[in-house]
Amino acid sequence: MNKITLLIHCKDQPNIIASVTNFMAKNNGNIVYIDQHVDREQDIFFMRLECEFISDSFAIEEFKGLFSKSLAEKFNLKWRIYSAERKPKMALFVSKYDHCLYDILGRYNSGELFLEIPFILSNHDDLRPIAESFNIPYYHVPVTKDNKHSAEQKQLELLEQYNIDFIVLARYMQIVSNFLIDKFPNKIINIHHSFLPAFVGAKPYHSAYKRGVKIIGATSHYITEELDAGPIIEQDVTHVSHTHSIDDLIAKGRDLEKIVLSNAIKLHANRKVMVFNNKTVIFS
Amino acid sequence: MNKITLLIHCKDQPNIIASVTNFMAKNNGNIVYIDQHVDREQDIFFMRLECEFISDSFAIEEFKGLFSKSLAEKFNLKWRIYSAERKPKMALFVSKYDHCLYDILGRYNSGELFLEIPFILSNHDDLRPIAESFNIPYYHVPVTKDNKHSAEQKQLELLEQYNIDFIVLARYMQIVSNFLIDKFPNKIINIHHSFLPAFVGAKPYHSAYKRGVKIIGATSHYITEELDAGPIIEQDVTHVSHTHSIDDLIAKGRDLEKIVLSNAIKLHANRKVMVFNNKTVIFS
Amino acid sequence: MNKITLLIHCKDQPNIIASVTNFMAKNNGNIVYIDQHVDREQDIFFMRLECEFISDSFAIEEFKGLFSKSLAEKFNLKWRIYSAERKPKMALFVSKYDHCLYDILGRYNSGELFLEIPFILSNHDDLRPIAESFNIPYYHVPVTKDNKHSAEQKQLELLEQYNIDFIVLARYMQIVSNFLIDKFPNKIINIHHSFLPAFVGAKPYHSAYKRGVKIIGATSHYITEELDAGPIIEQDVTHVSHTHSIDDLIAKGRDLEKIVLSNAIKLHANRKVMVFNNKTVIFS
Amino acid sequence: MNKITLLIHCKDQPNIIASVTNFMAKNNGNIVYIDQHVDREQDIFFMRLECEFISDSFAIEEFKGLFSKSLAEKFNLKWRIYSAERKPKMALFVSKYDHCLYDILGRYNSGELFLEIPFILSNHDDLRPIAESFNIPYYHVPVTKDNKHSAEQKQLELLEQYNIDFIVLARYMQIVSNFLIDKFPNKIINIHHSFLPAFVGAKPYHSAYKRGVKIIGATSHYITEELDAGPIIEQDVTHVSHTHSIDDLIAKGRDLEKIVLSNAIKLHANRKVMVFNNKTVIFS
Repeated sequence: MNKITLLIHCKDQPNIIASVTNFMAKNNGNIVYIDQHVDREQDIFFMRLECEFISDSFAIEEFKGLFSKSLAEKFNLKWRIYSAERKPKMALFVSKYDHCLYDILGRYNSGELFLEIPFILSNHDDLRPIAESFNIPYYHVPVTKDNKHSAEQKQLELLEQYNIDFIVLARYMQIVSNFLIDKFPNKIINIHHSFLPAFVGAKPYHSAYKRGVKIIGATSHYITEELDAGPIIEQDVTHVSHTHSIDDLIAKGRDLEKIVLSNAIKLHANRKVMVFNNKTVIFS
Repeated sequence: MNKITLLIHCKDQPNIIASVTNFMAKNNGNIVYIDQHVDREQDIFFMRLECEFISDSFAIEEFKGLFSKSLAEKFNLKWRIYSAERKPKMALFVSKYDHCLYDILGRYNSGELFLEIPFILSNHDDLRPIAESFNIPYYHVPVTKDNKHSAEQKQLELLEQYNIDFIVLARYMQIVSNFLIDKFPNKIINIHHSFLPAFVGAKPYHSAYKRGVKIIGATSHYITEELDAGPIIEQDVTHVSHTHSIDDLIAKGRDLEKIVLSNAIKLHANRKVMVFNNKTVIFS
Repeated sequence: MNKITLLIHCKDQPNIIASVTNFMAKNNGNIVYIDQHVDREQDIFFMRLECEFISDSFAIEEFKGLFSKSLAEKFNLKWRIYSAERKPKMALFVSKYDHCLYDILGRYNSGELFLEIPFILSNHDDLRPIAESFNIPYYHVPVTKDNKHSAEQKQLELLEQYNIDFIVLARYMQIVSNFLIDKFPNKIINIHHSFLPAFVGAKPYHSAYKRGVKIIGATSHYITEELDAGPIIEQDVTHVSHTHSIDDLIAKGRDLEKIVLSNAIKLHANRKVMVFNNKTVIFS
Repeated sequence: MNKITLLIHCKDQPNIIASVTNFMAKNNGNIVYIDQHVDREQDIFFMRLECEFISDSFAIEEFKGLFSKSLAEKFNLKWRIYSAERKPKMALFVSKYDHCLYDILGRYNSGELFLEIPFILSNHDDLRPIAESFNIPYYHVPVTKDNKHSAEQKQLELLEQYNIDFIVLARYMQIVSNFLIDKFPNKIINIHHSFLPAFVGAKPYHSAYKRGVKIIGATSHYITEELDAGPIIEQDVTHVSHTHSIDDLIAKGRDLEKIVLSNAIKLHANRKVMVFNNKTVIFS
């Protein structure tokens, strides 16, 4: 049994659903999941489809070629096809905060995440013992004002060496430059500790406290060139009151950050996220 | 332009999606929405599809006949096809509480609801002025222990006279008997003022207060023979604390009841709900 | 039985709680509610207290004088004392949107709100029928670029004539100038249709749609000179997704606006809100 | 500086607040926190108070004696006084599930919890490595039908040996008998994986799935003789849909369980919970 996940977007046009489903049927595929969305403002069609092929002789690369020639060119599709069995490889970048790291590794250990974590990277050495207790290689790549570019080159070497599919910044306290972003477009997931677009930048809990908001939040998004302005994958909030100090906000926020980031990782790893014009379509 | 909504469920089987989408394409239909669900426990396939037909000569009854012969028999489908333009007719049953009534009529007036309300019916005469201020016919059908059956016969006459599609019990404080339920299966929507299955029956806020719960809720469901045990359409909750008296719970609960019931009405009126084995599939 | 509500804030200092409670006891008052908060950042003490006096001869003005001399001067207190029986008078300002108006009047009619609504004022005449159906005087005071000041003078006359305690802007689509704000400091409640400080200003739902947020919100706050930057009383949010159009956001937002504004009104009318340095302390 | 926390409940009566605050002032105490609640149904007064004593010679046992004689007898108070500096000692009971254990130990390590964990106890040996990685003693006390009482005697010995204040059942899959409950009344905290009182007993996620609820929850409560019927400390819920399998409910539920149990632990450890007539008053 071979199973694929197909993601498509294109200009909205008639018969696109029937054509794709028909193509799968003709190639002995049985569609087990289909979901679609039309962005009426921009006139863009999005589709996510899971299809099973029973044939022993199914070859995914051959199938991709066929799909490309038969359908993708005709409808001018942007598309991706994944083997549903292949777990994506995720690199984990951290600094000194350990709550998201613990949360992700706990879920990873219990089999909750459909992915592999080949290594953890940090600009500090503090969290190495945690990585070691989970038996995951840990690379310490210090970042200073002066060595930023060479540090990112070192990072890129590791990402290529381990054949990494996407990167998660689990409270990684460095700004990632375009050098890396361009090589992993919509593949670097960050957790920001506010409900964006409120409180962009540093110290959002302090700003939230100062403003006297009654709700704090966390946002997971793909990073882009503009700080904290990339496509939002997941957000959640919790109520607070005047009784909460800044430390209370930080503590309550940690719980939000953990869950919001984990949910975003699951959505991405399960190929449920599409990005278009700095917004996401989430097929959950 | 003709637009239909198709709802299907059947035993899960290969090629069902491709066959249906292909059928639509062959009949010059353009699918503008498709969503599907497979219940793996029960091996049942569900699908909701919206399709546009540009042809001037499209005739929905003819199309239904064609669909039935070409597809429904082959796959042993349970199916319904609605003209997307036809607003369903909803009868509103109330007693003395007015908050859900006000909420529904306010939304109705502002054009938020895709439905018609041909009449309001009550076992009391108290809310007649509200119906009149919204220019909707109001029928007072008193219910006592002795006249229950004749009252329901009177209700049925009105429902048939106005060609009613579904009924909403907006805090209607009478138990509806099988006589009516059987004639409107999965078409009578109730709002129960607890998060079912907790606090079935009368006075759920009093029971919630007594139990000392930290959350209260409201549940909208289709009524069935067993009290408060029908398929759940929508639920929501709010946090409470020891500081809330029973009256506070009732006041907070009113806000939940209004929103949960309105959401359930919208889902049903927009043909987004399917029922199978006392559970709902919501294509929202 | 006479009951008062006392609100205090002052620099934090020893023995303030014991001194106040002692004062009440000495004057034959029985404290039935006490809550307090210390803002450690600013070193400010806040207290809310309800006290009952059984004596027939209790005179609130005399008591205020005594409190002022005996305690307020000694501890350099900022304080307010309200008769718990006196309902505050609330003026309701609207424009063309009716959802918050309907919601407030429905709650008012059912006795849910501890306040009086002597009149409704609007810069348009559209909502007059709703005011009339609830038997509340309606004043149409048009506002243009040229007559802004004279319009606010007319408003002030009405506010003074009716002895208004606080104003609620229930989607009133005009900017209120300092002329009125200065006369009702922290007494003009607005509902803004976003989770502030995100999406300040006009068309927040459009901005939220454009940014692709997964959460929308509503914020009730006291207006101050700076637009949408006043002390926040209440906020709430709801989850949204890529499937929601701008119209869907607006519709979902209406439900948030209604509940958030009603909650803010209740908190204010029940004297549960204190303001200090552009933030609120909510004794709920 | 000495700081105490005082918890009181008694029949509601005049002057109780003033008398207590006055007593503190007379003994050179400065009240830094006070909160109170009156249960009008049962006519019971509850108070929580934090008070600082600057005197070098302050002796808590002496103060307790004075309080007992001067106030407690007069007002017939039920009361407890804690030194605010003394961290309570918490025993952690687990079975095979590790998510709550990881969550608690992570928070413990990061200093988020005001308590000590002298040991972890389990009826299985599976989680020993986690305990060891956090350097906490782990006791394996197997429980069978035949050895239940001797197992609980062994547990009691450990609880006494380590001077334990309260017990947390972090998904401990054994029913605790009255033998232990009676020795730790309202001091054994359980996490139940449903929004009680719905889905009492075993396999609540399976029951929730079968019932087709749109919300699942978790409840933390003190255990009492009746299963899952003890005083509720904390509850939370999350929305689910027909797309979620039982495994999905279990995965989503784990996140709820972790946060609800941690919050309950914090409330208890910080002496913010009072129990009366099987309900809690939470001074948060």
